[in-house]
Amino acid sequence: MKVNGTHYRTIWPDPQDHTAICIIDQRHLPHHFVIEQLTSLESAWNAIRDMHVRGAGLIGATAGFAMHLAALGAGTDTFATDMENAARFLHTSRPTAKNLSWAVQRVQQAAGHAVTVAQKRQAIFQTACDIADEDARFCRNIGEYGWKILAEIARKKNGEPVNVLTHCNAGWLAFVDHGSATAPIYAARDNGIPVHVWVDETRPWNQGARLTAWELQQENIANTLITDNAGGHLMQQGMVDVVIVGTDRTTHTGDVANKIGTYLKALAARDNNIPFYVALPSSTFDWELDHGADIPIEQRSGDEITTISGVGKTGAIETIRIAAEDTTAANYSFDITPARLVTGLITERGITSADKQSIHALFAEKQGDQ
Amino acid sequence: MKVNGTHYRTIWPDPQDHTAICIIDQRHLPHHFVIEQLTSLESAWNAIRDMHVRGAGLIGATAGFAMHLAALGAGTDTFATDMENAARFLHTSRPTAKNLSWAVQRVQQAAGHAVTVAQKRQAIFQTACDIADEDARFCRNIGEYGWKILAEIARKKNGEPVNVLTHCNAGWLAFVDHGSATAPIYAARDNGIPVHVWVDETRPWNQGARLTAWELQQENIANTLITDNAGGHLMQQGMVDVVIVGTDRTTHTGDVANKIGTYLKALAARDNNIPFYVALPSSTFDWELDHGADIPIEQRSGDEITTISGVGKTGAIETIRIAAEDTTAANYSFDITPARLVTGLITERGITSADKQSIHALFAEKQGDQ
Repeated sequence: MKVNGTHYRTIWPDPQDHTAICIIDQRHLPHHFVIEQLTSLESAWNAIRDMHVRGAGLIGATAGFAMHLAALGAGTDTFATDMENAARFLHTSRPTAKNLSWAVQRVQQAAGHAVTVAQKRQAIFQTACDIADEDARFCRNIGEYGWKILAEIARKKNGEPVNVLTHCNAGWLAFVDHGSATAPIYAARDNGIPVHVWVDETRPWNQGARLTAWELQQENIANTLITDNAGGHLMQQGMVDVVIVGTDRTTHTGDVANKIGTYLKALAARDNNIPFYVALPSSTFDWELDHGADIPIEQRSGDEITTISGVGKTGAIETIRIAAEDTTAANYSFDITPARLVTGLITERGITSADKQSIHALFAEKQGDQ
Repeated sequence: MKVNGTHYRTIWPDPQDHTAICIIDQRHLPHHFVIEQLTSLESAWNAIRDMHVRGAGLIGATAGFAMHLAALGAGTDTFATDMENAARFLHTSRPTAKNLSWAVQRVQQAAGHAVTVAQKRQAIFQTACDIADEDARFCRNIGEYGWKILAEIARKKNGEPVNVLTHCNAGWLAFVDHGSATAPIYAARDNGIPVHVWVDETRPWNQGARLTAWELQQENIANTLITDNAGGHLMQQGMVDVVIVGTDRTTHTGDVANKIGTYLKALAARDNNIPFYVALPSSTFDWELDHGADIPIEQRSGDEITTISGVGKTGAIETIRIAAEDTTAANYSFDITPARLVTGLITERGITSADKQSIHALFAEKQGDQ
């Protein structure tokens, strides 16, 4: 998608030198557009852990390239062990994200099929690139299936914009391109459907205020920032036509782990008969867990709640404390929306109900993985 | 309640000179404890509108004293007209707050029963003092009825603290003393019941982070600050025993207007079989509106969402911008929790179901007001 009119992906190998991976350091958005180079496993781990990059698909793509950086640094004699250690290390960065373990496993399998260390390194790099390309392609497909939901709503609105509510950022900044929840919005726009997006600010990290509002503005999609508290009222007032969110992990039974607060919006959508869709590439499915309650929920520092950064009077980025000094804060990062509250899952292969039978029918090759 | 060990109310006439009304300017909390003197109708209007004071009972008490200040400034010949204008003017400050119109009306009625302007001024001042005293007394009664709910839960928990979740600040800072939602918590503490409070930060004005967490800390009540997004997850995990919130206006049919986001917590409580109580003095009931949907919902500036204040590195209060410069934000301040989601209303006369018959049975003298 576009930044100041120029097309970007969120991650790409330096075209001059594949020992460096370029990312957009999202901590500085929307105030500054900063490109960072990752040159080691550790710097990639840090970029994931400290949220220079975040979002289901982008965490997966970064993990793939992190394995590439690890392979460059791994000893020729200790290659297999070094790569196993790298994989274990990467898993510690964000526990809830399914795409992370999925990408690491895919890279490891590709390396397993190669013979020499040089061939393994080549296979790992190629697989990391494939993961990124596939992520962008799958998100584009999600858009192709998803915009028809918006078109159907638009037909009943006589030219009035379709009001979509979204939580967190499942935009192109959360993937390699297009996004999951935003892909139907961008595709609808491309197909002449007028869309307006209610953007949950998404405390505490404010992915909505900082990323979603910004990327929609860059793409000239009408949007309004709201507090996370506001969605229920808007739904009661008939001001929301559909909710579309992303997910960090969805069980093959349809339970959805997503940014904390998603569950509350799903409850409000159900209470007001508003469709609630979850958009995801298949890389985000967990084919092993039967119950959403078994998904590990990351806890982050309470400082993310008691302090906040932004642009001060001088134009510089400043961090301020917004609670009393001795305040204790708990920071759970995700919640589980049970399948019963989900209208449908928008995937790269089409839209499915959030139940095991339907999900497995769409991804039949996964049957054996249970 | 106590600030640094000293007892305060949130509003009181200057003991030396009743032409000045003292308030705690809550905009500076929790960082600074600032007492402000109101000396005119306009300064009182401004204090309500710009939220130097806020909260159901305190808005009512301030409106009462604002009428006293208006009476001092009103002309002897034009007294009745000046007071009517003052009442109309005060109504424009916060449209959702029921206590405001209730207090203004009560003061006007008292003035109507007096004969001379001097007597009217005296009656108005006395009524404003009565409103404040009654508010404190009624909140204390709410605590007496409410703590038994917590005691009942505590009995099943073998000494483990009772986990209360609250939204916004319906604490003593929102009333003259004790608070509504917090009164049962303080009374439980006084009766030896261990209580822990989950404090919703309550975006955008952060009444929870700035006021509720602070006042609970001042009273040594265990508490943990959370984002507004977190409550659903905590309830799913069995970490919330009961929700208690306040209200800015509740219809005599049991629909509850309260700080935006309350409805989402009520939905989550219902989905997890957790009791959801609303604490209110009878001054917050609207005896005319049959439907919560008819309660006017205040909209405030989007700047409250896109900018935020706190303590910077130097210790000074700074305001920073946390969204891109050209972000559009919508700021609805309240939502309506339908009566069907409310377990009970805790009032100064006891606990009642949130339905017309039960509410009128408890406040039988209001029957004629319909």
